[in-house]
Amino acid sequence: MLSEILRAVESIQYDDLPDDVRSTVTDAITDAIGVGIAGSIEPACDSLVAATADYPGNHALIGRHGVRRDRASAACFNGTAIHALDFDDTNHPAYSHPSSHLVATILAHPAASGRDALRAYALGLEVEARLGRSMNMSHYLHGWHATGTFGTIASTVAAIVLSGCSEAAAVSALGIAASMASGVRANFGTMTKPLHAGLAASNGIRAVEFASCGLTASASAVDGKFGFFDVLGDGTEAAQHECWGTLGEDWETISPFGLALKPYPACGATHPAIESALRIFRRNTGRDAATIDQIRVETPAYSREILVYDRPRSGLEGKFSMEYCVATALTRGAITLDSFTDTAVQDPSIQSVLPSITVSESAEVAGDSEFATRVSVSWSDGHSDTEFVPLAPGKRARWFTPAEVEDKFMMCASRAIDQSSADKIFGACRGIADLGSINELTEQF
Amino acid sequence: MLSEILRAVESIQYDDLPDDVRSTVTDAITDAIGVGIAGSIEPACDSLVAATADYPGNHALIGRHGVRRDRASAACFNGTAIHALDFDDTNHPAYSHPSSHLVATILAHPAASGRDALRAYALGLEVEARLGRSMNMSHYLHGWHATGTFGTIASTVAAIVLSGCSEAAAVSALGIAASMASGVRANFGTMTKPLHAGLAASNGIRAVEFASCGLTASASAVDGKFGFFDVLGDGTEAAQHECWGTLGEDWETISPFGLALKPYPACGATHPAIESALRIFRRNTGRDAATIDQIRVETPAYSREILVYDRPRSGLEGKFSMEYCVATALTRGAITLDSFTDTAVQDPSIQSVLPSITVSESAEVAGDSEFATRVSVSWSDGHSDTEFVPLAPGKRARWFTPAEVEDKFMMCASRAIDQSSADKIFGACRGIADLGSINELTEQF
Repeated sequence: MLSEILRAVESIQYDDLPDDVRSTVTDAITDAIGVGIAGSIEPACDSLVAATADYPGNHALIGRHGVRRDRASAACFNGTAIHALDFDDTNHPAYSHPSSHLVATILAHPAASGRDALRAYALGLEVEARLGRSMNMSHYLHGWHATGTFGTIASTVAAIVLSGCSEAAAVSALGIAASMASGVRANFGTMTKPLHAGLAASNGIRAVEFASCGLTASASAVDGKFGFFDVLGDGTEAAQHECWGTLGEDWETISPFGLALKPYPACGATHPAIESALRIFRRNTGRDAATIDQIRVETPAYSREILVYDRPRSGLEGKFSMEYCVATALTRGAITLDSFTDTAVQDPSIQSVLPSITVSESAEVAGDSEFATRVSVSWSDGHSDTEFVPLAPGKRARWFTPAEVEDKFMMCASRAIDQSSADKIFGACRGIADLGSINELTEQF
Repeated sequence: MLSEILRAVESIQYDDLPDDVRSTVTDAITDAIGVGIAGSIEPACDSLVAATADYPGNHALIGRHGVRRDRASAACFNGTAIHALDFDDTNHPAYSHPSSHLVATILAHPAASGRDALRAYALGLEVEARLGRSMNMSHYLHGWHATGTFGTIASTVAAIVLSGCSEAAAVSALGIAASMASGVRANFGTMTKPLHAGLAASNGIRAVEFASCGLTASASAVDGKFGFFDVLGDGTEAAQHECWGTLGEDWETISPFGLALKPYPACGATHPAIESALRIFRRNTGRDAATIDQIRVETPAYSREILVYDRPRSGLEGKFSMEYCVATALTRGAITLDSFTDTAVQDPSIQSVLPSITVSESAEVAGDSEFATRVSVSWSDGHSDTEFVPLAPGKRARWFTPAEVEDKFMMCASRAIDQSSADKIFGACRGIADLGSINELTEQF
């Protein structure tokens, strides 16, 4: 697949990007920077600001007005900030969070034009999705977190595009990246999970810096014996997967599984259930949640393996609790960042609803890969209501409207910066294709 | 094994180190800095100096007088420099080059005392060797280069000792390191192989920097499900290997396989053959190499899998050529750094000797893990001579004398720095136990 990547990097220009790829990437970048602003005040980000105090530079940290670091440290912070709240977009075949590291990589190239940034993102995502198609599920099931592993390769592709390095340097950069890619799933549920995104971005940037200055790596380090596919996958045959032949022609970016924006800052497996519950809430505004008698949630069995907290006690556990998400949607009528503080999760009025919830599988949803969910509620007065959502908002077929992109951005941004800054950053993101340089965006941070 | 590491870091003080551990580590540090000075002018190091020009700081680069970088970049350079010529020491169970990253980690802590540096090195090496005992050969055979993978964990242990961080931070640092460890064998034979050593050191340092500022990782990221042992090894049972129970009691550092210093800048599998050939050369000083008729080399079959170049054309190929090393020893009477330039390897007077060499296995050496080798030479006048070396110089039972340590250091240092600087650096290395701070050493670079 190395040759396919090199050919795509060489031949695909901005003008070759289909319009819906451009607009999808623009939405994804906007969304990522919004959730990055919200994530930038999370404890993981406080730690990174402190830990890199001795690494001076002039690269901007998202949401940290005036704080600057060296290039690799800033990329590490920005990737971590975007993924810190698990509110950033996902790619299905890779089981990864592509915008976290791809946007962090773009932000580390302030001199690049907005159009080159869009092209770099698009090519990086195409490679990341194909790593997923050719190496999963085995890569994920083996214990790798693809945001760190595939993310390092994809960020390197983006950095190759943005640096305009030679083909020889591109080969070496990808080979160096193969020796940097890491990230184990044991760190899920800790600050190191978002750090994987930050490391992927800084790895990609450093791989290109090293290679551009002549450091060599093997041309077989990605797809040969004892290379990335071989060592981190089931074998080198993955490198011959048919998906590589369509790189630069078929666009994963706009496929049903290429990108999914998250409407709620919880695990994606909860999203159809949350949507069902919110619709029921809106249809029953007069009813007191305290009079709810029973709640039945029918969801694919697989979601039970992911959503393991039936009685969550912390905000993080709440993000992976079907019961908590449904109870909150039915009780509060909204799922926001504020829903996932420890205090919110421990609220007695929510905790008291949890025992009335039964989660099971039915024939209607069995085996559905999109977590299709039916929620059924009955009240003590005998009234009942039910709702079925087969596909969450934010998926390709239910992509955010421009208003939804803006609403989520502003909700996120308000957590960390003032309205005037948010307006400027939002405007720069929406008009990224017309930016003379990414610096016009990052100077607002 | 996490608990064993934490207990050793907490309980083992400088005074607990056996005298021969102290002197062995002192020799290893001296040797590493010597080969690092020689390696510092290699192309890989030129590339790193250029690639990190925008990463300012006050950390010294070995052999680059006055050049300073940020801490992580300096550690990356120093680790790469030490391993650049493949002339640095090895650990047998890990199949790794421990001093490359351990010494680079130490040099990144200029405020540490010399005694703490010795303690940090010793504990790092003990962990690295045990990772080898519990995870090999499967880890190596799977395609990992342990200098990058185990090296990241071992450097983190050393950095934990040198930073004096809390136990909670130590746990997180090791967990972060588990998500940074990488390095694939496909990059052998390129500049990225020594880069693995540099990355291991900078990974270890950054893991501790992050964790010391509060970034959390999972306590199971090293030895739990989907952690380091599980994902990069054959399974978590390796974490229960009996060798972990002796950490801080039995010292791998001074075991027969703990450290081997390299007398020759070629693959270790060539060393008994080189030694045999040099002895034959010395016994036959009057004879013209041009009159050599036949050379027979009897070596374990396994060495043929490693030494794949029977007609090498480059300096790097020469390092992995039994034929070239034996021919040079018998023709020149010495194997030095100058033996492995492209010009030296292409010398017609050496190339003409290669066809007269036969490499085979005999009952005497079959299966020997130390590459025991017999060399037999016959000249056209009918004279013949033979020599058998079961164990290379530099192995534990044939450890370097103080004079040999000094000779190798000065030979290496003369490649890149003046005699006066070499004397100062050598003196600081030999007296490291008495240094108030490592800065007294690094300020000489």
